[in-house]
Amino acid sequence: MSPMSRAKSSVFIAESLDGFIARADGAIDWLALVEREGEDYGFAAFFETVDAMVMGRTTYNTVLGFDAWPYGAKRCVVLTHDPPSARHGEEFYAGDVTALAERLGAEGARHVYVDGGEVISQFFAAGLIDEVTVSIIPVVLGDGLRLTRRIGRDVRLELVQHRAFDSGLVRLTYRVA
Amino acid sequence: MSPMSRAKSSVFIAESLDGFIARADGAIDWLALVEREGEDYGFAAFFETVDAMVMGRTTYNTVLGFDAWPYGAKRCVVLTHDPPSARHGEEFYAGDVTALAERLGAEGARHVYVDGGEVISQFFAAGLIDEVTVSIIPVVLGDGLRLTRRIGRDVRLELVQHRAFDSGLVRLTYRVA
Repeated sequence: MSPMSRAKSSVFIAESLDGFIARADGAIDWLALVEREGEDYGFAAFFETVDAMVMGRTTYNTVLGFDAWPYGAKRCVVLTHDPPSARHGEEFYAGDVTALAERLGAEGARHVYVDGGEVISQFFAAGLIDEVTVSIIPVVLGDGLRLTRRIGRDVRLELVQHRAFDSGLVRLTYRVA
Repeated sequence: MSPMSRAKSSVFIAESLDGFIARADGAIDWLALVEREGEDYGFAAFFETVDAMVMGRTTYNTVLGFDAWPYGAKRCVVLTHDPPSARHGEEFYAGDVTALAERLGAEGARHVYVDGGEVISQFFAAGLIDEVTVSIIPVVLGDGLRLTRRIGRDVRLELVQHRAFDSGLVRLTYRVA
């Protein structure tokens, strides 16, 4: 299979200034600090460009606790070794992420949204991430789930865009170098 | 002692996009990614405003490995329970950081530079940090020493300044809310 068949993969995530994407129990209540009427910090525009998403089990469990499934009919793959029953058409996968990225590309996905620290780290480790957007929330949490773990190598980035919002959120977009 | 006697305390540090301030062994070789002739990202200007600095033992050991002691005659306190012999006039301290901050203020310090993840976390936990400048380096490390640990509470920040440099470094300055 040609490498060109792999879909572009992007991260779009918020983190505290000290690099946490959730509290230790997965809670993201602290994102309320930057909630502003009519301001989604570019998420909807980003999400429109995405054909499929891949998330980890922790992210999935957090999302299941929301009032509504936020991903509509978008193709959604949850990485887990212990798949529950699908409730919103989501698929479950356990295995090599490079094979998954190639399969998604072969099946028509051109842009994949990768979410959750564990899955993001696996994609980074496999050299599969192309673009990273991180919104830095103006808070220090001191503990929690990290954006990355055990990548095993440095990933160099090129800053593409930066923007500060009235709430104090700073959105940084990078291309993987 | 009046709380007004406490010196202002600031953090001025670089971190990877995923929130690490050093590799697991303390190495900061990855800062070379943003080294540019004649560009110190504001460090010298910041350092001039500082009367005293407080650092942890890991930071101290890293600095001792530099070709020259970088802090001149600036008052320097190293937090450690196992003090070695001073080589550059530095003092060693083990104990409550609030008492230390008050003592530094009482002895004339008006602006204290707090460095090293462990010490920064202790100062955050004690509510002693007033300003935080973080330079986000365009790299993902995946593992290392975190900016914070075990603070035990959220620290809310107000964005004061943000600036992107040609190297891709983004410098963010916050006031503690």
